[in-house]
Amino acid sequence: MKALLLVAHGSRREVSNREIRSLATRVREIESDFDHIDCAFLELAEPSIPDGMRRAIHAGAKELVVLPYFLSAGRHVSEDIPVEVDGVRTEFPDVHIMLAPYLGASPGISRLLITQAALA
Amino acid sequence: MKALLLVAHGSRREVSNREIRSLATRVREIESDFDHIDCAFLELAEPSIPDGMRRAIHAGAKELVVLPYFLSAGRHVSEDIPVEVDGVRTEFPDVHIMLAPYLGASPGISRLLITQAALA
Repeated sequence: MKALLLVAHGSRREVSNREIRSLATRVREIESDFDHIDCAFLELAEPSIPDGMRRAIHAGAKELVVLPYFLSAGRHVSEDIPVEVDGVRTEFPDVHIMLAPYLGASPGISRLLITQAALA
Repeated sequence: MKALLLVAHGSRREVSNREIRSLATRVREIESDFDHIDCAFLELAEPSIPDGMRRAIHAGAKELVVLPYFLSAGRHVSEDIPVEVDGVRTEFPDVHIMLAPYLGASPGISRLLITQAALA
């Protein structure tokens, strides 16, 4: 069983956190290899990254991809998220836990921007 | 002549600002309706939003799309960027200035996340 965890920063504004949860719902509706798709937050919202990872693993995930929903490669992406992920990795040595590149590194972003600009 | 201005937050880390400038370069390489594509920053980096808009207009833009490179609809997207854009709009009544929805509102984001997760 394969799981995807989208990791956002988390916000004091609950509407921003809801935006992430509803994004996870939309991602679930897409045909993919993932049997379990959810979101987690680095700070300020629940679930935390470790809790989100444990939920996916308790749901049966043997492969878990953690994807940072961030646009730039700051300290959160390069240090904080990997530290959280590594902590859970040691708890579950039998689960294959992978960290995907952050969203801003996606080669598809530039085309998406052109498409989005057409909606102006 | 049609121009696109990608607007990012701007960072104290110059490497993050360079990431945005190199994104603008990649977007330029895509076949599109836009003759001029550049980036600007809400704060902490140059050019500012008004300066980026003026550059596009001085380069000949009669239509200018401003696109917030943001993932969530916080105060920057809902208030700060529109205020900056409106200020320049009054300077150039003959230019058609449009504000595109922010990147996080893009319907294509969910599919891009699935593609990105496959790169883990």
